[in-house]
Order: sequence, then C-alpha cells, then structure tokens
Amino acid sequence: MKKIINDPQDVVAESLRGLAVAHSDLLRVQEDPAVVYRADAPVQGNVAVISGGGSGHEPMHSGFVGPGMLSAACPGAVFTSPTPDQVSSAVGHVNGGAGVLLVVKNYTGDVLNFETAAELADAEGIETRTVVIDDDVAVRDSTYTAGRRGVGGTVLLEKIVGAAAERGTDLKACEEIAKQVIARARSMGLALTAPTVPHAGTPSFDLPDDEMEVGIGIHGEPGRARVKLEDADAIVARLITPIIEDLPFSRGDNVLLFTNSMGGTPLLELYLAHGIAERMLADRGITVRRRLVGPYITSLEMQGLSLTLLKLDDTLTELWDAPVRTAALCWGP
Amino acid sequence: MKKIINDPQDVVAESLRGLAVAHSDLLRVQEDPAVVYRADAPVQGNVAVISGGGSGHEPMHSGFVGPGMLSAACPGAVFTSPTPDQVSSAVGHVNGGAGVLLVVKNYTGDVLNFETAAELADAEGIETRTVVIDDDVAVRDSTYTAGRRGVGGTVLLEKIVGAAAERGTDLKACEEIAKQVIARARSMGLALTAPTVPHAGTPSFDLPDDEMEVGIGIHGEPGRARVKLEDADAIVARLITPIIEDLPFSRGDNVLLFTNSMGGTPLLELYLAHGIAERMLADRGITVRRRLVGPYITSLEMQGLSLTLLKLDDTLTELWDAPVRTAALCWGP
Repeated sequence: MKKIINDPQDVVAESLRGLAVAHSDLLRVQEDPAVVYRADAPVQGNVAVISGGGSGHEPMHSGFVGPGMLSAACPGAVFTSPTPDQVSSAVGHVNGGAGVLLVVKNYTGDVLNFETAAELADAEGIETRTVVIDDDVAVRDSTYTAGRRGVGGTVLLEKIVGAAAERGTDLKACEEIAKQVIARARSMGLALTAPTVPHAGTPSFDLPDDEMEVGIGIHGEPGRARVKLEDADAIVARLITPIIEDLPFSRGDNVLLFTNSMGGTPLLELYLAHGIAERMLADRGITVRRRLVGPYITSLEMQGLSLTLLKLDDTLTELWDAPVRTAALCWGP
Repeated sequence: MKKIINDPQDVVAESLRGLAVAHSDLLRVQEDPAVVYRADAPVQGNVAVISGGGSGHEPMHSGFVGPGMLSAACPGAVFTSPTPDQVSSAVGHVNGGAGVLLVVKNYTGDVLNFETAAELADAEGIETRTVVIDDDVAVRDSTYTAGRRGVGGTVLLEKIVGAAAERGTDLKACEEIAKQVIARARSMGLALTAPTVPHAGTPSFDLPDDEMEVGIGIHGEPGRARVKLEDADAIVARLITPIIEDLPFSRGDNVLLFTNSMGGTPLLELYLAHGIAERMLADRGITVRRRLVGPYITSLEMQGLSLTLLKLDDTLTELWDAPVRTAALCWGP
C-alpha cells in the first residue's frame, strides 16, 4: 500500500487536523466525535444544512462547509457511515433556530444513523427534515444499499439547498428544493482502477489491466458490467446514454453537466471526457447551461469518472449561481 | 495503459476543447497553435502575463487563465515545451500595449522557446520581460535542466504577479515582483508512483512497491534518492527540512505554505501531510500566514506531493490575497 499516512487508524483524525489549520477562516473541526462546521455557526434564523458520510470521498463533504453550502459535515471512518453521535453533535453546533435539513446519500448505514440523530434532535425540540439522494442509475440495489446509491448529484444538491438556506428560505421550502434536485438529477460512474482503504491495505477489488468496471459505486461496489477498456468516446457514451434514458432527459431540456473525477484521473483526461459529453448532449438537442468539472466526489485514488446531469429550471439555476465560499467550491458575487 | 482518451496524439487538443466549453465565461481556446487566453483579452493598458509548458501538469497553466492571474497559457504536448509559435500567438492575443511578462519554468526547451518568442515580439516592437523560476531545491542539474527546475513556486508566482498586472502595475515593476517571488520561494517533491505519458504508453520510470523517489521532478525526473517507503511524518520531514535549510527560512519568518498533490494522491492524505508540515514549521518558529492545499501542479496521475514555502512580506501577502477568478483558483472580494 503506497500512501502518505502514519497509523492507518489515525488517517481521518490527522487529515481533519490539516483541514482545520488550512481553512480556519471558513471552518472549525471538532475531533471527537468528528464534526466539521462553519466558523460562523450557528447562523441565527437560518436553516442549517448538515451532511456527512464515510471519509475517502474528499472534498465531499468537509470541503463544502462554508457560506452558501453546508453548515456542517460529519466525516465517518474511511468508507464508513458517520455515527448518530456525530450528527447529533453537528446539530448542536449549527442549529440556528430555524430547523435542520439532513442531506443523506442512500446507503443503509447512513440512512439509519441520520434517522437516529433526527429522533434525538426531535426529542430536544429541534425540528429536522431528512432528504435521501439516490441519483445513481447504474444499479437498483447494491452492496451497501436498498435502492439506488447516492453519488454525484449530492454535490449539486448541497450547493443548491445551501444557497437557499443562506438566503433565509424556511425548512419546508428547503426540503422541497432538495426534493426537486433529487427528482431531476441522475448519475453514473466508471472505474479503471480500484482504491485502497488505508486500514484494509489492499485494493478494494481486482480489475485486470485491460478491463474497466461500468456503473461503479463510490466505495468500489460492483456496477453493471465489467468490460474491456474502450476509448473515451465509447466510455462517455456508456455513461451518458443510461443517464439520459433514465429520467428521461429530452430535446429542449436545459441541464447542468457535472464531470467528476473519481480521484486518480488527471484533469487532462477529465476535460477531454467533458468535451465529449457536451458534444453528445448537443447532438441530442439537450442544452448544457451550467458545468462543474473536477474531483468533487472521489473514491480515494481510484481512476475513473462519473457524469451527473441535473435538469435545470430558473430557480435551480439561480441557486446554483448564488455565491459560495468553501474550501472546494468558491464563486461570486 | 489505463486512460480515458481516444487517439493518444489528440489528447491535448481534445482536452482543450473540453476546457473551452467548460469555461467559456473565463477563457478562449485557439487550437492551432494551441493557446488559452482570457475571454476579455487584450486588457488595454495592462501588462499581459503569459506562461506555458508541457501539458500533463493541469490545472497549471491553463487553469490559471483569467482575471487576476494569467493573460494566456501555452500548452505544449504532454511533458513537452510549447513552441515559439504558440508563445508568439499568445502575445498577439493578449498584448494590451503595456508590455508582456513571460513566466518560464527553468527547463532548457522552455527557456529557449520563450526566448525565441521574446525576440520575435521585440522585432514587432512589443516590449517583453522574461522571468525564469527555479525553485526546486532537490537537485542542481536535472534531465531537462541546466540549474534547478521550476516547480510549485510557479503557481504562487503566477498568482502574485497576475494580481500586480491586474491593478495596472508597469512591466518593470511586475518583473521585480516576479523576481522577488523567485528569490523567496523554495520547493521539493516526492513520488510514490510513476505517471504514464499517453503517447508513450508505459510508466515513465520503475518504482518498486516498497520504494519512493525523493526530490522527484514534475516529469518524473530522478530526484535525490530512492528510499524505502516511510510514514507521513518522515516523508514531510524529508521535504520540509531541505526547503527550510536552502533559503534559509528562519525563526520569525512569515510564510505561505503550499501543499501540492502530484495528481494521484487523494485530498485525505494531502491534508494529513499539510497538517504535519504546519506543525513542523511551528516547531521551528516559522509562522504560516497563508496556505494553498490541492492538486495545482501535477504530473498526470502520479501519486506523491510537493511542498513549497514562500517567504512573505506585506506586498506579496496583499497581492496573494487580491481577487482571482480562474478555473482552478478563485476567491474574493
């Protein structure tokens, strides 16, 4: 295992220490239980937006903590759900009196643990709503999931609902906006290589030198098919076609196209794939109005990419464009 | 070779097509000769700042084109110097009448080709100044270099001198600021794995499963030593100690610490390394005033990291903090 780490058991805690010093203008880190929260939390009178999940997908979620996006993130152990304890502690740090929206990717452990935390908050008189995102069209059920997995759409959801919360939108309306994003976002990913979890020490799966895994999950879960390596045109077609057909996206739709690196794929290849995806969408009469290109929801050093399409309307576009200031996403005004 | 590409010969051109559609608000791409330039170029009355180099180090340099940083970037073939033709064409696109600063990393081919372009500009009556950055303390001469190599300090230089140009600083003063950065920046890198150049098809060097290359260049050039894998504390010490001793940086200094991923190293590990570097600097009484953490000067999918220290003064700090809006770096006001 080739990694820049000390004791594999301490990787998340040590990484959070680095995050804390690197971004002290934006966020605070509590080590036990692990919570990353906005430096200016709680923002009184605003809905707090909390997400979380296993570590190893950075910058998601800790890199999205800050004005205009997440109020707090709960980083679990690598590829492991955060505990109810973490989520409860996050609620305590960021609750500003207008309720808390919990953004959960659809993995069984995540859903259960956020649910427990929501019950604890309820017992303390803090109103919560939970939204579960399941945008991965690759497989119906999976290793850690009943139903579809939550993947790239999560990044877009957190940006958009974070913008809504930032401008004082109430909890019920934030929940509605989040559900809109979930209804309109679809993703699929592909892996060329396997990631290695530090405390495991060996690659999560075997993938021969001439094969790739189509429909991969962000923890290296199996996808739809293992096939021989193909060129970029064929790879992008393998991802974009099932995404388009699933919602379906249709001629005349306006979309946000998110081209995501799984971690180990260089930007040189990622922009190449993005250009192909734009061309394929144009060929079908689907108009790309907004883009995001980069490593935003990763699987450690796994090589591969995922594509996400979000069907835009004026409200979602405006919320996407709203200012955001986090370690990983930053723009406007 | 596991890559998301079509014909290996078309990688750079196809990638630039994706870049162009992804960031049409910021930049324009000319395909032949390849030049990436600001969408609002030329900015009349301002110094134009042009850099360039081999592709495969993304986001450097194309990802730094935009207000507050580069006026244009000249992307060569992968790990290959840009041609004089590219640089001349870039000058034509961005010259706003106040002269052109050429920012060159110290590699023999880059230096020669930028020099030729500078002579061509001179013949056309366009004033140029050239600065050559050589911040890598690892080795004195190297595979492609007489003298030290230009590495991570280039990112800081381009941000700082770009800010100066943006506020109307004249060519001579821009050159002086760039020289200040060169005099005050030192870097060193380390690789755990080798990158694979698309048109070569095999890894640039062999590195056994239990070894790492200390002092690696960004093209996989040999460094100081090949040693057994060590833990993160030891790895960071191997980089930060020679950097500190070289300038030298001393107790009481204020610095910018740039912790850079070579491409394939996940953020989880990078922040961990950053935290260790901050602690080691604090132990020596060196104060980290500014930070940059992420993959900004990469070597395709190579796993590894580099550290860069820049000794700050008030002017450099203010220029670092100035607003920037590019694909890869974006902040304030």
